[in-house]
Amino acid sequence: MIDQFARADKFAEFTGIEFIEAGEGFARAKVKLEDKHLNSVGTVHGGLLFTLADYVFAIACNSYGTIAVAINASISYFRAVKEGVLTASAREVSIQRKLSHYLIEIKDEGNNLIALFQGMAYRKKETYMFNEETYG
Amino acid sequence: MIDQFARADKFAEFTGIEFIEAGEGFARAKVKLEDKHLNSVGTVHGGLLFTLADYVFAIACNSYGTIAVAINASISYFRAVKEGVLTASAREVSIQRKLSHYLIEIKDEGNNLIALFQGMAYRKKETYMFNEETYG
Amino acid sequence: MIDQFARADKFAEFTGIEFIEAGEGFARAKVKLEDKHLNSVGTVHGGLLFTLADYVFAIACNSYGTIAVAINASISYFRAVKEGVLTASAREVSIQRKLSHYLIEIKDEGNNLIALFQGMAYRKKETYMFNEETYG
Amino acid sequence: MIDQFARADKFAEFTGIEFIEAGEGFARAKVKLEDKHLNSVGTVHGGLLFTLADYVFAIACNSYGTIAVAINASISYFRAVKEGVLTASAREVSIQRKLSHYLIEIKDEGNNLIALFQGMAYRKKETYMFNEETYG
Repeated sequence: MIDQFARADKFAEFTGIEFIEAGEGFARAKVKLEDKHLNSVGTVHGGLLFTLADYVFAIACNSYGTIAVAINASISYFRAVKEGVLTASAREVSIQRKLSHYLIEIKDEGNNLIALFQGMAYRKKETYMFNEETYG
Repeated sequence: MIDQFARADKFAEFTGIEFIEAGEGFARAKVKLEDKHLNSVGTVHGGLLFTLADYVFAIACNSYGTIAVAINASISYFRAVKEGVLTASAREVSIQRKLSHYLIEIKDEGNNLIALFQGMAYRKKETYMFNEETYG
Repeated sequence: MIDQFARADKFAEFTGIEFIEAGEGFARAKVKLEDKHLNSVGTVHGGLLFTLADYVFAIACNSYGTIAVAINASISYFRAVKEGVLTASAREVSIQRKLSHYLIEIKDEGNNLIALFQGMAYRKKETYMFNEETYG
Repeated sequence: MIDQFARADKFAEFTGIEFIEAGEGFARAKVKLEDKHLNSVGTVHGGLLFTLADYVFAIACNSYGTIAVAINASISYFRAVKEGVLTASAREVSIQRKLSHYLIEIKDEGNNLIALFQGMAYRKKETYMFNEETYG
């Protein structure tokens, strides 16, 4: 179910992000940096780093079968990168009835911390559903 | 010069974001929402919203001719959207010798506030350069 | 009613913060800097700046008669200060059924922006009540 | 030296915060909640929680002997508390030439996570100095 959720993300797919794994309260994904991911000064775009982190955040906070929507997020950048594979891992910091909170680390292949992301989600009561008509 | 900087952003171009205008300390850009911009629950991806805001933030903080790099950013989401054109506007809140700070509003066509982004940049001494070889 | 709410804040009172005014979605307060407000390097403590901003944020998000609780907040500092009077003003950026969002500016007597605070609140259904027994 | 730095913080002392220990890149402190720490709805004030976290953040980022100043911080709240002893622990997430970044956890006596704080500091070249005249 959470795999289906992960694979239904069109923007993550469009940007070249690949799902690795997920479970209750955690998720991992990666992206191989390409030329299209760069900004005006030739380093990886903050938007791509954020999208990678936001993707595993969304999977982790939706991993219990009910819909959770991001209400805010912050990201701090520690190193500029241009190439290689980046991996993001989400872990749950707190989960309450209506709100949950996650920390996401983005690391390069040398295990250097590239960015730290923090996200808060609002938990709805509805479950999400996937069927062939909607997500074919 | 700042137009050249704006047009050199490959990830913004790849995601379909269009530059509108910029000047010292401000910038505007827009994106027409498409299917590829959606997340697993069918609304616009936080990563696309962030990329749009981050793009005008980068242009605004680089508008003085010297390189400024993002050190952190936060975003709060107010409404889920699925279609239409979104516009982001950056304005300068503070600029000091080494640090500058911007607020970016993302609005829909009805002038509703969709998200608010806040970014802090570290200002380097180097100027950036564009030439035909590098950015054609 | 909102005045009563404002005056019931013990920590704000303890730290020397003074309520100025409030209405639906906005609030203002001030503090005269004293020696006790300083940090280890002799400038005003981030905790005092945050408390001042948080106080007007709390008043503004509770200005509709129902309880709202802070879920997160961020602050960026632009200038170190040591003395004088600081004033914080909260304005509402967004209000929805369950969440509301505020921006707070802290300025000095010369109208310089000292810090910018951003806060998100979760809106409960309960109204708050004040009576002489509880807050006498 | 770092102990001296910790003990020179007047606002921390004024608010009743007690230093526990510190070393390179980390610090711990605690506060016993009292009536004066409460907000208008009778729970601990966000400003006190922030001050506690900010205090250990300041000690941790100043633990190398040169001055580091906070440039921004964010805090997320997970549980409302009214009494007991709260402990804050800072750990270093990243340290570069000019910037460093810390995560601070605030926990209650039952080891429950009350709030998570994230702070970024700008590192100056100057060393700080304490002598009997200044801080007697």
